[in-house]
Amino acid sequence: MSVARTGEFGLIARVTARLQVGPTALLGPGDDAALVAAPDGRVVASTDVLVEGRHFRRDWSTAQDIGHRAAAANLADIAAMGAGPTALLVALCVPAGLDVRWAEDLADGLTAEAAKVGASVVGGDMSASPTLTIAVTALGDLHGIAPVLRSGARPGDVVALSGKVGYAAAGYTVLSRGFRTPKLLVESYRRPDVPYAAGPAAARLGATAMIDVSDGLLADLGHVATASRVAVDVLRDAFEIPRQMRDAAHALGVDPYQWVLGGGDDHALAATFPDTVELPPDWKVIGRVVEGSGVTVDGHPYKGPAGWDHFR
Amino acid sequence: MSVARTGEFGLIARVTARLQVGPTALLGPGDDAALVAAPDGRVVASTDVLVEGRHFRRDWSTAQDIGHRAAAANLADIAAMGAGPTALLVALCVPAGLDVRWAEDLADGLTAEAAKVGASVVGGDMSASPTLTIAVTALGDLHGIAPVLRSGARPGDVVALSGKVGYAAAGYTVLSRGFRTPKLLVESYRRPDVPYAAGPAAARLGATAMIDVSDGLLADLGHVATASRVAVDVLRDAFEIPRQMRDAAHALGVDPYQWVLGGGDDHALAATFPDTVELPPDWKVIGRVVEGSGVTVDGHPYKGPAGWDHFR
Repeated sequence: MSVARTGEFGLIARVTARLQVGPTALLGPGDDAALVAAPDGRVVASTDVLVEGRHFRRDWSTAQDIGHRAAAANLADIAAMGAGPTALLVALCVPAGLDVRWAEDLADGLTAEAAKVGASVVGGDMSASPTLTIAVTALGDLHGIAPVLRSGARPGDVVALSGKVGYAAAGYTVLSRGFRTPKLLVESYRRPDVPYAAGPAAARLGATAMIDVSDGLLADLGHVATASRVAVDVLRDAFEIPRQMRDAAHALGVDPYQWVLGGGDDHALAATFPDTVELPPDWKVIGRVVEGSGVTVDGHPYKGPAGWDHFR
Repeated sequence: MSVARTGEFGLIARVTARLQVGPTALLGPGDDAALVAAPDGRVVASTDVLVEGRHFRRDWSTAQDIGHRAAAANLADIAAMGAGPTALLVALCVPAGLDVRWAEDLADGLTAEAAKVGASVVGGDMSASPTLTIAVTALGDLHGIAPVLRSGARPGDVVALSGKVGYAAAGYTVLSRGFRTPKLLVESYRRPDVPYAAGPAAARLGATAMIDVSDGLLADLGHVATASRVAVDVLRDAFEIPRQMRDAAHALGVDPYQWVLGGGDDHALAATFPDTVELPPDWKVIGRVVEGSGVTVDGHPYKGPAGWDHFR
């Protein structure tokens, strides 16, 4: 049944019925606003928007996949501050001909991804629109610790990474060339595997700066370098290229390091730590903070694409 | 200069430069997430989305007007819980050909409206999109009081209204017929005059239920009636029709009560109070809560349009 037939309130009722409201939601959907626990006395908040054709394609991903990815993109931003996510709010704009089932499946994906971190969808809004658009706001709690900003990296710090890089970009390239495999890459694009717990853990370990890798690793390390007024040097050999990625790169005639160094969408976390910190196994050293400005690879400027601009 | 020429980061930089970050923003735009004060230990959160052609037209409203209205729609939801707004996050989707100046003016409008209540824009996201879309999330603080829900109205309560109703709907009709006056109505549509302070004041006075009138007065009182499992009877004579509205209605062949009872977009606040409460002058009694279900006008079902559905 199309959303035009159910109407705004019918669609809201059907989508809301799919949500499972978690313990941090003191008041869920259905009133003028939601009420969310903020025991720290401060709330971390971030918004990310996904536009059909720019951030997702309905023929490449299921509605559930897109729900997972929309939630992940926002939850990763909360984790990158060192906070634990508590809630999502979702503004959904859909073409009038869309099947209500698609919106319900999207809600299932959003809910399932949020549930991984104990968060839930607590509110939102819906409208008809010619362009399918999903704007998500995530809230989080710092549990009494200081937020980890982009601006705290200091020369001598190590640069470390938690999570995957390049997998989603490789999956995107594979799909854009008309293939549906390798599954490892395509699935990484559809549902990123975000190391949420590594964010608060890094904050407790004394991370000096942290960022969610969403624009591309070098581009995002560039944001850290600029905000911290330092330079970052990345070691190319720190990255292992998995067999499936190497094979796909070879078949498509692509340098796999272009995916690893320039691809976003895996939502890995990159952080800097004093070099005295003993890092747990889920944080891998990939470079070093030095005096200066900008980002280099093995001491040299990188010639490939460093990231992604959603206007170009 | 078009946003396609400035690019995503250029546009973000130019818009962010227009924002004035307020005292509740512990960390404003520029990092992975913002940090907002939540002294109550709970945070109120609401999201509203505005889509070009459905919620606004660029030939009817300036970018600043649209910024005011987008902020007002969200801030009113926070006030309707009895909370004080603290922050806005804004997801902005714009056609690549849009002039950057338009986005800057929108930011000015959002900032100016938020400043009325001591709030500010603390974060957001931008993307290109064929459809100009503005999704706003507002956060607020309850200052230790209980939230006022839609579900607390009890038979015997009075129904009271703070703010205007019908002005924006009249302005919308005037504009849709190709006129630009009366100024009172058109300006009410462009920049609603929301009684923000009346929300927390009503909570302190002991309001049993409250709602932001955005779908239309009768439709929104219907939400209160349904959530509270009561009926609401509205007194038609409680509403004074201002001269400009009466004249416009006469000229356009419209029943002005259709605007007053069925129009949203003024973002008045409607609340129910025990009839022992002495209401301050900015709350005007417009009806009564009774046993039963649904909404009546002077004891009879209302035949005109009760509200607005954004899918039809």
